Amino acid sequence: MTTVSIIGGSGYVGGELARLVLSRKDLELVQITSSSSLGEHLHSAHPNLRGLSDMRFTSPEEIMDVDVMFTALPHGSSNSRMMELLDHAKHVIDTSADFRLNDPESYRKWYGKDHGSPELLPTFPYGLPELHRAEMVEKGRAAAPGCVATSTVLGLYPFRMIAKRVIVDSKIGSSAAGRSASESSHHPERSGVIRPYAPVDHRHRAEILQETGVDVMMTVHAVEMVRGISTTIHIELDKPLADKDVWGYLRAAYRNEPFIRIVRSSKGNFRYPEPKILSGSNYCDIGFELDPNQKRLVVFCAIDNLMKGAAGSAIQSMNVILGLDERLGLEFPGLHPI
Amino acid sequence: MTTVSIIGGSGYVGGELARLVLSRKDLELVQITSSSSLGEHLHSAHPNLRGLSDMRFTSPEEIMDVDVMFTALPHGSSNSRMMELLDHAKHVIDTSADFRLNDPESYRKWYGKDHGSPELLPTFPYGLPELHRAEMVEKGRAAAPGCVATSTVLGLYPFRMIAKRVIVDSKIGSSAAGRSASESSHHPERSGVIRPYAPVDHRHRAEILQETGVDVMMTVHAVEMVRGISTTIHIELDKPLADKDVWGYLRAAYRNEPFIRIVRSSKGNFRYPEPKILSGSNYCDIGFELDPNQKRLVVFCAIDNLMKGAAGSAIQSMNVILGLDERLGLEFPGLHPI
Amino acid sequence: MTTVSIIGGSGYVGGELARLVLSRKDLELVQITSSSSLGEHLHSAHPNLRGLSDMRFTSPEEIMDVDVMFTALPHGSSNSRMMELLDHAKHVIDTSADFRLNDPESYRKWYGKDHGSPELLPTFPYGLPELHRAEMVEKGRAAAPGCVATSTVLGLYPFRMIAKRVIVDSKIGSSAAGRSASESSHHPERSGVIRPYAPVDHRHRAEILQETGVDVMMTVHAVEMVRGISTTIHIELDKPLADKDVWGYLRAAYRNEPFIRIVRSSKGNFRYPEPKILSGSNYCDIGFELDPNQKRLVVFCAIDNLMKGAAGSAIQSMNVILGLDERLGLEFPGLHPI
Amino acid sequence: MTTVSIIGGSGYVGGELARLVLSRKDLELVQITSSSSLGEHLHSAHPNLRGLSDMRFTSPEEIMDVDVMFTALPHGSSNSRMMELLDHAKHVIDTSADFRLNDPESYRKWYGKDHGSPELLPTFPYGLPELHRAEMVEKGRAAAPGCVATSTVLGLYPFRMIAKRVIVDSKIGSSAAGRSASESSHHPERSGVIRPYAPVDHRHRAEILQETGVDVMMTVHAVEMVRGISTTIHIELDKPLADKDVWGYLRAAYRNEPFIRIVRSSKGNFRYPEPKILSGSNYCDIGFELDPNQKRLVVFCAIDNLMKGAAGSAIQSMNVILGLDERLGLEFPGLHPI
Repeated sequence: MTTVSIIGGSGYVGGELARLVLSRKDLELVQITSSSSLGEHLHSAHPNLRGLSDMRFTSPEEIMDVDVMFTALPHGSSNSRMMELLDHAKHVIDTSADFRLNDPESYRKWYGKDHGSPELLPTFPYGLPELHRAEMVEKGRAAAPGCVATSTVLGLYPFRMIAKRVIVDSKIGSSAAGRSASESSHHPERSGVIRPYAPVDHRHRAEILQETGVDVMMTVHAVEMVRGISTTIHIELDKPLADKDVWGYLRAAYRNEPFIRIVRSSKGNFRYPEPKILSGSNYCDIGFELDPNQKRLVVFCAIDNLMKGAAGSAIQSMNVILGLDERLGLEFPGLHPI
Repeated sequence: MTTVSIIGGSGYVGGELARLVLSRKDLELVQITSSSSLGEHLHSAHPNLRGLSDMRFTSPEEIMDVDVMFTALPHGSSNSRMMELLDHAKHVIDTSADFRLNDPESYRKWYGKDHGSPELLPTFPYGLPELHRAEMVEKGRAAAPGCVATSTVLGLYPFRMIAKRVIVDSKIGSSAAGRSASESSHHPERSGVIRPYAPVDHRHRAEILQETGVDVMMTVHAVEMVRGISTTIHIELDKPLADKDVWGYLRAAYRNEPFIRIVRSSKGNFRYPEPKILSGSNYCDIGFELDPNQKRLVVFCAIDNLMKGAAGSAIQSMNVILGLDERLGLEFPGLHPI
Repeated sequence: MTTVSIIGGSGYVGGELARLVLSRKDLELVQITSSSSLGEHLHSAHPNLRGLSDMRFTSPEEIMDVDVMFTALPHGSSNSRMMELLDHAKHVIDTSADFRLNDPESYRKWYGKDHGSPELLPTFPYGLPELHRAEMVEKGRAAAPGCVATSTVLGLYPFRMIAKRVIVDSKIGSSAAGRSASESSHHPERSGVIRPYAPVDHRHRAEILQETGVDVMMTVHAVEMVRGISTTIHIELDKPLADKDVWGYLRAAYRNEPFIRIVRSSKGNFRYPEPKILSGSNYCDIGFELDPNQKRLVVFCAIDNLMKGAAGSAIQSMNVILGLDERLGLEFPGLHPI
Repeated sequence: MTTVSIIGGSGYVGGELARLVLSRKDLELVQITSSSSLGEHLHSAHPNLRGLSDMRFTSPEEIMDVDVMFTALPHGSSNSRMMELLDHAKHVIDTSADFRLNDPESYRKWYGKDHGSPELLPTFPYGLPELHRAEMVEKGRAAAPGCVATSTVLGLYPFRMIAKRVIVDSKIGSSAAGRSASESSHHPERSGVIRPYAPVDHRHRAEILQETGVDVMMTVHAVEMVRGISTTIHIELDKPLADKDVWGYLRAAYRNEPFIRIVRSSKGNFRYPEPKILSGSNYCDIGFELDPNQKRLVVFCAIDNLMKGAAGSAIQSMNVILGLDERLGLEFPGLHPI
């Protein structure tokens, strides 16, 4: 039995981690911490877990020793505390933004302050198993990517060698902004919007550049959806491509990937990737179309931001690190209709 | 390995049955039929199943022999054909409205025509394991209840002896009307409504009367939601009740039921049952409140109409009939947020 | 030119009042106050008003003299300050809960504290012109009703003499809770709910009793909608009614009312009242159905909670008081589709 | 009094035209035709118009003589019949796609067949008053633009001289697909999608090229919304621009335009154009941001597809042609919250 803890467990990513860990017979959740929900049952923060566990949130001040620790603290909170946390776990998977960037300079540029533990940055592989499987096994750690970054990196990666000018137009659900209520998340204001919340210069550009070598131009819109991201990647081509070329690039990159599906049908309502049917699943669906005579490849990439975009990738990374079947505990295929 | 077939598999209930059967290692889906999707892959009708199976829909004219057959034909279609279908399966679980009512007279009254196989009616127990577990085992069959009826019967059943005058005000999602497009399901018309689609005289009243002995007054509203039902049951009381009395009735009825949860909290956003966090789960959440000095008990009951309200109850019934753990394959707890 | 001020103008009701006043050529908006938005343009709080006016919010400490003052302060804030405000206006229309109840005892019971100016209560007629037109003209004041109360009172009023036992099941949009963000209005939590936010004992029961004489049993659900209320009133009858009787009661009450429409069609998607097509309009749509053999009359009542449920009724009351055509400035019929 | 007819009045654009014409005291609606709703009251198709008019739909075979005729027939239906219709009206404003393109070759290319009345094409100015005011007055006709085209042309027009490579990523509501129910508009399928319904090669590219000289690369997504379009125009720049340059281009193009607002705020939820607050209004809101160091100008353009994207522009064009104040009957500013 592998013991597991979740540090910072009352947020949305913490809740998904708890759900996924509790569903496993080979894992034992021994601790889940929360300052705000200290002493309360899991289902007070995560109502879907009612009846699944008698656990209560414990204090983040007393950390137990475990095999695998998931850290789901707010951005900026784990970087100075990580050294201490590492003492309590064989493996640590961080889901904040703190360990995604390898370069402390890049961190300073995009997050506006010095990193608290720059020497640890090289010890956390970027947490996409599709790109860093061997490194994860070697280092026993992972830094789960940002959700917008995940959908962009996975859609762009197969084409990184031919993608010079890339415009990314992403649409995301409200859960991506986390659990704290704010004026911008107030239902009458947030409902039904197509809000350009990051018109330029989204922070995830740094991760995308690091992982694909492409400095994308990026605009992110908040849309009417709770879970899910749909990212449209417009790649301008120097020379025309044919459909079979695109298929070739995709197969070369993802032939054996258990969680990447190429979605492209000639009919039906789901001809291209669609986040709404991915809620709860760990799939990353990728589709494409070529603009005839216009030298543009359009790639569509859809994920559940809390699963493949956060907790799902974290669990998948843990499976990789522990030498398990990567799909373990991540079999839920999503629902239709929903 | 238990062999399974789904007769009429391209509708929403058929899709959920396929998802649930395909997730099981102890079941083998050997046939799924569809006239409209004949020859196509499962994921053409059920896009969430992409990559899970290579099966294709076969003709409803050639029925294979199996251990368990789920019939998910349109209402009225299975009653005349059931005799033939019974030859091909040890156990049959019907999800249409055709075998829910025990009394052919009641069927004629509510469905406007004679039943095609009245002699079979007594052989199909009403498909709520909570009420008919022993009978299902004995007869090896079940008729899965209507979705509005499920939420009403399960909420009302514990109080049937004290409920004289009952008003049921139900709110349901668009998937309850099935997969066929119509003017009333056109997105610009259906979106955001609170539409009294059955202001009086909903057919499910017949099932509710049969199962609880109460002839409820019922109004059903279509609301903005794809999956889910929330039924509010207003029970007028002859004499005042205390909270502990209500808890007593509920515990007496459901103490050991694996899929019924009593939801009643003093704080938080999910103090009472909420269908949105039940998508994909088989739970029936029940909550209540007493109207001080007014002799009214309000019972709230929430389900996923395609799960506990259809395919989930059907799988649960199969588990009962096969002598398995009832929870098998129905462990998904639902998502939050969603 | 009639001069108008809005005291407490940055909330949702204040915004609607501003929109309605600015659209009028016979009215001059001379002041709109706000503590939180002091010094900012109207469109900072009310983005739909961009370009319509150069006004800025002024301090609530310096009140100008006007012909008509609308007070849209938070509940509990206007009752102690009203005496002072009355000095600055010929006519005052209050949209808070403070002056709706005639009886200080009732106020204490439902709002949990003593009223600050009980002697003023009799000077504010309940602000439904349909019920208190003459009294408004006489007193030159009005207290705009609560939004849930409006939909219940107007639906129940015609039947008050035959309604003994009444159960009210109301469904309301998120704007009814006002402009302040909270955990319960956080989009991922609020989106898609059918939340029993007032399972019993909603405060508006007091207004309903005062205006109809019926002590209703009431349950209010928050549903997925920003604007709008749909209230279903289940009236149990002592003796059967015929359709024509119901029409008779409705015509007797509302024959000449410009903002009440009886909505009952034999076909189409809008056979009964539907709040979604009332956004921005001042209509109160009322429909009904009789439960055959069950002695129940079901009345459906739909309004826009910010219009007929607040600002619209306030403007209509002003028109009445000023001796104008009641419909002035309230002609917008709502949109379809929306 | 100007007499008006609407030919093809049961669709969504026909309904908006009827609403706008009926709200005017200077216009008399003398005929509204419909094959499908022949003989029925207006409110059977347009429920928001209940109580506003006693008119009924008449046959499209008997056309009355009027001052202004709006044709709102399905695409392809008006081009062969237009010659006959022109005999019955001093002015004709067509809202179909049939007369938008000046060049019959372009029509054949994009609509797949020969135009039925190519000689009439030059007599219909493209129906954006912002670009063709004088020509409309001269010819007395207009061809209302496509809704996606409107949002793209108006956002791109000011920058057409510096826009070489342009990627358009548009998000549209379900009403843009019209009133006919289909599998793709079925609520359970359409709800909550981010569906790339036109991944490349949307027909409106032809209009955009004609009006701006730019051959845009275009992707259109169907999103969760009934009314509204938000179009994001990514313009790659040869050389960097400053904010004041962009303001300069915008002012040069739109300084005195009554229905174009530049929306760009430093705070609040509505810093950029947002379609949700434009429902029912004729505004075209335009905002922008410059990508630092990346030579990209992002332009955001939001409209109500049925108003500025169809019926609103048609009424505005009529006002221009008749020499009236352009804003007449188009004063509704939209609602907030909604």
